[in-house]
Parts: sequence; structure tokens; C-alpha cells
Amino acid sequence: MADGPAIAVESLRDFVSRALMARGVPDADAAKVADLMVEADIYGYGTHGVFRLRQYLARLAGGGCNPTPKITVAEETVATAVIDGDDGLGHLAMSAARDLAMEKARAAGIGWVGVRRGNHAGPLALYVRPQADAGLLGIAAAVGSANHVPPYGGSNLLIGTNPIAFSAPADGPDPFVFDMATTVAAMGKIKTMLQQGQSMPEGWMVGRDGKPLTDPARKSEGFLLPIGGPKGFGLSVAIGLLAGALNGAAFGSDVVDFTKDTTSSTNTGQFVAALDPKAFGMGDAFPQVAARIFAEMRASAPLPGHDPVRLPGDGKSAFAEARRTNGLVLNQALRADLNALAADCGIDPPFPESTQA
Amino acid sequence: MADGPAIAVESLRDFVSRALMARGVPDADAAKVADLMVEADIYGYGTHGVFRLRQYLARLAGGGCNPTPKITVAEETVATAVIDGDDGLGHLAMSAARDLAMEKARAAGIGWVGVRRGNHAGPLALYVRPQADAGLLGIAAAVGSANHVPPYGGSNLLIGTNPIAFSAPADGPDPFVFDMATTVAAMGKIKTMLQQGQSMPEGWMVGRDGKPLTDPARKSEGFLLPIGGPKGFGLSVAIGLLAGALNGAAFGSDVVDFTKDTTSSTNTGQFVAALDPKAFGMGDAFPQVAARIFAEMRASAPLPGHDPVRLPGDGKSAFAEARRTNGLVLNQALRADLNALAADCGIDPPFPESTQA
Repeated sequence: MADGPAIAVESLRDFVSRALMARGVPDADAAKVADLMVEADIYGYGTHGVFRLRQYLARLAGGGCNPTPKITVAEETVATAVIDGDDGLGHLAMSAARDLAMEKARAAGIGWVGVRRGNHAGPLALYVRPQADAGLLGIAAAVGSANHVPPYGGSNLLIGTNPIAFSAPADGPDPFVFDMATTVAAMGKIKTMLQQGQSMPEGWMVGRDGKPLTDPARKSEGFLLPIGGPKGFGLSVAIGLLAGALNGAAFGSDVVDFTKDTTSSTNTGQFVAALDPKAFGMGDAFPQVAARIFAEMRASAPLPGHDPVRLPGDGKSAFAEARRTNGLVLNQALRADLNALAADCGIDPPFPESTQA
Repeated sequence: MADGPAIAVESLRDFVSRALMARGVPDADAAKVADLMVEADIYGYGTHGVFRLRQYLARLAGGGCNPTPKITVAEETVATAVIDGDDGLGHLAMSAARDLAMEKARAAGIGWVGVRRGNHAGPLALYVRPQADAGLLGIAAAVGSANHVPPYGGSNLLIGTNPIAFSAPADGPDPFVFDMATTVAAMGKIKTMLQQGQSMPEGWMVGRDGKPLTDPARKSEGFLLPIGGPKGFGLSVAIGLLAGALNGAAFGSDVVDFTKDTTSSTNTGQFVAALDPKAFGMGDAFPQVAARIFAEMRASAPLPGHDPVRLPGDGKSAFAEARRTNGLVLNQALRADLNALAADCGIDPPFPESTQA
């Protein structure tokens, strides 16, 4: 399914940028968002990269997403801030939050920056990997952009997949970069399965009758299950409070389903944090300490039937480098979708050889 | 099993305090630790309260735990600090970290305080509930005090249950207080089952052969399973980095099993954070916002076979108040154990009527 012509990173970025500009996004913002969206694909977060372009364009066209936001710092202390995303593309507020958190971490040991009036911003990994690359530890979390999960034991959809991500520098090719939804499966993965005609394993979703739901086309009839039952529930509520309620952003019944609603402000809430090991007495030693710990884990004898142990983030640097060099191979459905979007926007298609497919 | 005579909170506290003093802990420190240990039982964290007294006394006697620590602030910025616990009882360093984090949150929006050279400190809830009671949000995490978990797909025990806890204020009787191990089951729960002669459900532990392990007496032959498989693994590594490695504390092969080793410094790592909603533009509105969200969740129609939805922390205030009034009912095995410890320490038994049991 994923076979097909590779597209050069630069070409894909240019296409995404032009599509956003066709919906009124200024050049510099369009370039910044396109860069982050393609970066998501480069690092293998296919469900949160250019795959989301259709939704973003629809919300820009519908007025739910502001094409010309003014990103401001609404609240600020030496170590904290709240960024007001002005209902613009989520990547703009989140990259501003990340940069400000890193700056504050250098000054105050920690920077913790919340976002209100944000939007879907792609994979959280985009907002924690740069901390690790700069020798800092990173944390980011978000209120999911649609409620797919009921409170534990309940049946009303009031919680999103509320993802959280962490990063840390480590000597060697790869930093620790870990990005998870608090549900067994993320909705993005289920959408990809739907697009690719696959069915879900049991345990990912249940219907309102409590029975397993495995057809991704029926996803709106059921709900996602949290990891560890009540534990995943508690964790997702904690994330909702920290990323949403604390910043004056949505959490609970005021969450707008951004995949269905193109006209309303979602008031999406997120946060990004950075911690500087120097403030914790580690000097420059942290990456060596982390590398020692990770080396021990990788050396652990695999369980029967398992591959060698890998840490989250392992192999990503080489994987990304290969894609930067060789281009990206997107699946046929996505290629056709991007071509259709190009036609809607009145710009050249990114895959001219696929238009007849 | 849990039936039996109630002991007044004050009597239990006095007993624990005298036992610690018998092992060389100064009066004020003994009172502080006894208070926190009994507080754990009052709030229903039975596996992390006075049940742990035997271990603490053994490590005090063996020299692994320093009875007369000097708790110091080893590193400090306006928003962060590292507390050096000087190998004393873990409750001393962690309560100092909590108090300092709350103070810093008032000044800088956030306070994030790590601990090095700590020890087992009871349930993390002790170090997050006070934030919520004071109108702040709390976070705490710890490197588990023994490695019971292999890296995902591996077979060497290099990770602990690495718990994390969150709290938030909410209008109404109960704040949000959520305290979880990143494993399906916590070792404390398994020890209680062993003491009570129960067997574990499948899914809590597997043997080194990968097969389910249900006999708590065989716990040393297997390992605990993380929640959500690789997700729980990633989360526990992130916690280990933030609570351990970042503070210059143990994580990985340098973790000492405090249940078996009474003579070595464990260099236990933890952190406590506090966030002030006022710094995030919420003024005094946060508890109302949280209460609105929680009320929606509690009103969610229960799934067939489920009780009404509860938030983590619900009912704890009334539960604790009843125990403060009526005293604590400890199970027979624990009563006998505390009586035996009293004999070892040469002090009066807490349950004189149970000595012949």
C-alpha cells in the first residue's frame, strides 16, 4: 500500500506551503507550518503529518481556523507563560510555546508554557525533540482535538486521546523521544487503517454496548479504551487539567470535534515544558548518564519471540536522514487526496503522475 | 481479614514515632515521618503506610538509612531546586521538596524540586494533595525502590514501578488526587496479597518464561507488566529520567532493592512540582472550572455492570475524616507485625490485646 513514487522533501514542503497560502495563510506562517507538517512525516508520524492537510484546509476555509493569527504571550512569569494562539494553525502557537519554554529553562531551570486558543498541531514529538537536541529535557501534552473516550465506567464521550510526550538528550545517534496517546490506540492510526481498508485488533475500541469494535468505518459508534483502564483515565484527566483547564482552554464537553466542525474556535489547550540539567547539578553529564542507562536496557536479553530492546526514539535519526535524502513515499490514498486538495486550491498537484490512479 | 480492633490515629502515630526514635531518629523527624506514614493509612494507601515500618526500621538499623540526616538544598533557581536527602527517611526529603515547590510556584508560577539521596517515602499522594488543598496543581514522581520490570521485550530487571501522581483543586468535598504505578499492579499490592494469602489475577506479572505468574510468593521469579505494553515502558523511562537521572539519583542497574538491602544508600530519586493557576491567567476560577468538568464526568451514564463514574480522589475526604474520628482498622497480620516490631524496639505494643493471636 505504501509503495509508489517518492516525493522530495522540498517539493512536499513547497506544495503544503502553497496550499496553505491559497487559503489565506501568509507566506512565512505557511512555510513554518509546512516545515513542521513535513517534519512529522520525515520522523515517521504519518498519521499526524501532511495526512492532516485536508482537515486544516477545511477549517481555514470554514473560519474555525484563523489564517492570519497574531500569536501573543498572554501571561508570563520568569518560568511560565501562556501563549494565545488566536485560533490560528496549531503549529504556530506550539512552536512559539516550545521556543519560549526552552528560553525560560535556560534562565530559570524550567520553562512551562501553556497554549490557549490553539489548534491541532501535529505530533507532540515536534515540540519535544528540539529540547533534547539542545541538551534539555522536554515534556509536552495536549487535550485531544475530539472526544473519543468516556470517563472510566461511563458512556459519554468527554475525553480525548490526550497525548503526552517526553524527550531527553543522550550520547549517541538518537535522543530519547517518546510520544504516546493515553488510549490503547490513537484515532490517527484508526483513520489510516480506514483509508487503507484494514480492520482493528480487538481491545482498541468498544461499542456503546461494551462489545469489541474492529471495523474502523464504525469508529463513530464506539469509543477508544484508555491504557491500563482506570490508570489511563486518571492520566488523561490530569493531562486535560494541565493542558486545557489550567490555560483557560477547552476540556470536557466544551471540546469541539475539529474533524467535523470547520467553523468554530476549538480553543485547543496544550503545554510544552523544558528542563535544563545544569540547574539540577548535572553540568554537561546528563547525556552520558542517559546513554549508560539506555545501553543497559538495549543489552537486556530479548524475551522469546521479541526483537532486541529498543528505546523510544531509537533509529529515528537515521530513518529521518534517509527520508531527507531519498524523499518520502506516501501511500496511494494520501497521494490522491493531496492531488485533489491541489485541484481545490487551484495549485499544481504534488503527484502529477498519480492523477489518473 | 481486615476486621479487628480500631486503633486511634494518635496512638498509631505515637507508636510509629517511638519505634523510629528507638532506631535513633530525633524526636521532631520521627514525629514528622510518623505523621505522614499514618496519613497514608488514613487516606487508604494501606500498602504504603505503617505497613512499611518493618522495612524502614531494618534500613535504619542496617545503616542504609541515615537516622540523623541533614536535609539540604543542593541546587536552586527561582523555579527549581534539588533537595539532598542525606540518605535519611524518604518522607523528610520529599516533604521538604513539596513545601519548597509550593513556595516557588507562588513566586514563579511553577516550582519543580528534585530529590537525590532520598529513600522510600510512602505514597506520592502525600506530596501532591497539599498542593490541591492550597489551590495549586501538583505533580510528583519517583524511581521505584526496587527493579521489578524489564525494558519492553527484554528480560533484565532494570526498571521500577516508577509511580507518578497528579493533583488539582476542585470546588466540592474532594480535590483531584491521582497516584498510579506505571505497572498494571504495584508491588505493594502484591505484598499485601501475599500477607493475606490471596493469589494474583493473570496479567499482573509474568515469569521469565513469559508465562502468567499468579502466586505472590513467587514474585521474585518474574516481573511486573507495564500498563499499555510499550507505552507504560516509555512512560516509566521518562519518569526514571526526570525523577532519577536528572537529579543525580539512581535509575537502571544502580537502583538498590531497598526491601532486601539494609546497608546501602539507595540514592532514591523523586521530584515534586506545583503550578499556580494565577500565573496561567485563571485567577481564582480554576477550582470551579475543574468542578464543572468533573460534574459532567460523574453524570455520565454508567456502562452496563459499572458503578457510577468516580474521579480519582472522590470520597477520600469523607473516608479520611471517618478514620480520623473512628480510628484505623489494620489487618491481623499487620497488627502482629507491628507488635513484633514493638518488641524488637523495646517499646509498648500498639495492639496489646492481639499479642496472643
